[in-house]
Amino acid sequence: MKLALCQMLVGMDKQKNTEKALGMIRKAAAAGADIISLPEMWNCPYANKYFRDYAEEADGPTVQALSAIAAELGIYLVGGSIPELKDGNVYNTSFIFDREGRVIGTHRKVHLFDIDVEGGIRFMESDTLTAGDEITVVDTEFCRVGVAICYDVRFPEQSRRMALMGAKLIILPAAFNMTTGPLHWDLSMRMRALDNQLYFAACSPARDMDGVYQAYGNSCVADPWGQFAAHTDEKEGILYCEIDLERVEAVRNQLPLLKHRRPGIDSLAWEKEVQK
Amino acid sequence: MKLALCQMLVGMDKQKNTEKALGMIRKAAAAGADIISLPEMWNCPYANKYFRDYAEEADGPTVQALSAIAAELGIYLVGGSIPELKDGNVYNTSFIFDREGRVIGTHRKVHLFDIDVEGGIRFMESDTLTAGDEITVVDTEFCRVGVAICYDVRFPEQSRRMALMGAKLIILPAAFNMTTGPLHWDLSMRMRALDNQLYFAACSPARDMDGVYQAYGNSCVADPWGQFAAHTDEKEGILYCEIDLERVEAVRNQLPLLKHRRPGIDSLAWEKEVQK
Repeated sequence: MKLALCQMLVGMDKQKNTEKALGMIRKAAAAGADIISLPEMWNCPYANKYFRDYAEEADGPTVQALSAIAAELGIYLVGGSIPELKDGNVYNTSFIFDREGRVIGTHRKVHLFDIDVEGGIRFMESDTLTAGDEITVVDTEFCRVGVAICYDVRFPEQSRRMALMGAKLIILPAAFNMTTGPLHWDLSMRMRALDNQLYFAACSPARDMDGVYQAYGNSCVADPWGQFAAHTDEKEGILYCEIDLERVEAVRNQLPLLKHRRPGIDSLAWEKEVQK
Repeated sequence: MKLALCQMLVGMDKQKNTEKALGMIRKAAAAGADIISLPEMWNCPYANKYFRDYAEEADGPTVQALSAIAAELGIYLVGGSIPELKDGNVYNTSFIFDREGRVIGTHRKVHLFDIDVEGGIRFMESDTLTAGDEITVVDTEFCRVGVAICYDVRFPEQSRRMALMGAKLIILPAAFNMTTGPLHWDLSMRMRALDNQLYFAACSPARDMDGVYQAYGNSCVADPWGQFAAHTDEKEGILYCEIDLERVEAVRNQLPLLKHRRPGIDSLAWEKEVQK
């Protein structure tokens, strides 16, 4: 299975952003990708003042365009994330499409990014966005795939939950910044992969030092042993990675972390629901 | 608060191991350490065939010696771990002492190390050892301190639980090997510190390439921002680290991960017990 992460440069113009995204998706599909992901907030500048203006409902033109291209090219598409308008609220939402262009999953960012680092970044997503309430996994003919968005990766419970629900690949559209990126990006992706013995792929926008937000870039895929299977720099481009599901099984057999969890000590409340 | 990690070279002779440990504790106390830790299995070669022979009950001579030196020097002592005989079973156990030499905590390794890496290490602790069933935190006048042992670090739930129980420092006597050490040691210690916004200290035996087990060494302390506050190499020695509890609070205020957890999504079953 071939995964492609589109690390696109996001601009101010929504229509141009959409055209660029569709172009990168076409290129990735032509290169043989089975699953293609866009980054977080790829059709909208990443700043609170733009989210509501750029937001669309789930049947809006951006989702329609993504659906159409997934069907046309016959690929799975993790539509990064876009601001979604729903019942008057704005969510940071990832629509996920199958090879026929059907929406097979909708992840609304569960953990909103509210940070105020002395001498570094201040950002309060919760000023404008509403948090989702659901963990998201979708099924493909290859394996079950989990989807989370950016700050969600900070919470080990969420990745653990997707792993226990059967995900062998997690895709994270994300836009870390120049404060937290150098400190925590590589570390976080490697550790969630290692702890949960799966592939963990993070898809960032390219870095634009003149833009309203400086994304870290560095899209990457960590393998189940916690090593990078693919990693790029901060520039615009498509990162490809072969996902070897036999490697997932091999690592899970050699170092059976998921089996060694101790019920009662490591158990999570929601496991009961999963087992239903 | 000054922490000292005694990265000692463990030999075959239990009495000599004890003498060496006491010597390092004396040296660390003379250097002003408030809390001193020994490594995992410091009085016994790390191999299944030795654990039962070297095991003692909780009132045995090793625990008595540790208690006496903690009281004599007026320091907190995390007694690494030793094989403990209890009701006919052998546990990998850490006894923890206060400044008066009283046992204030007893951690029995919860997750047993059973691994079989192709071309790497094979080790089955569960062939001889019994697993403990308790999460361990103790109180000092500085802060609450969590204690876990080696393979316990592989399970994010356990560190999370100690953090939610109030720990601001976790001490992990541990003996990673030459397969998993280079791959996962630094990564694991940094990420548990970062996720839980606390100091995470790992105390290893020194590496002995002629011994029955080649420990990775590299004792270290990761700070609440996921960076190393102290880190050593593979050789015998004492690693000191100033623990800055104000830094814990500062990081928790700037990037409030623990506050941003989502009840219902990130909640763990045992949280209900903790809240009682």
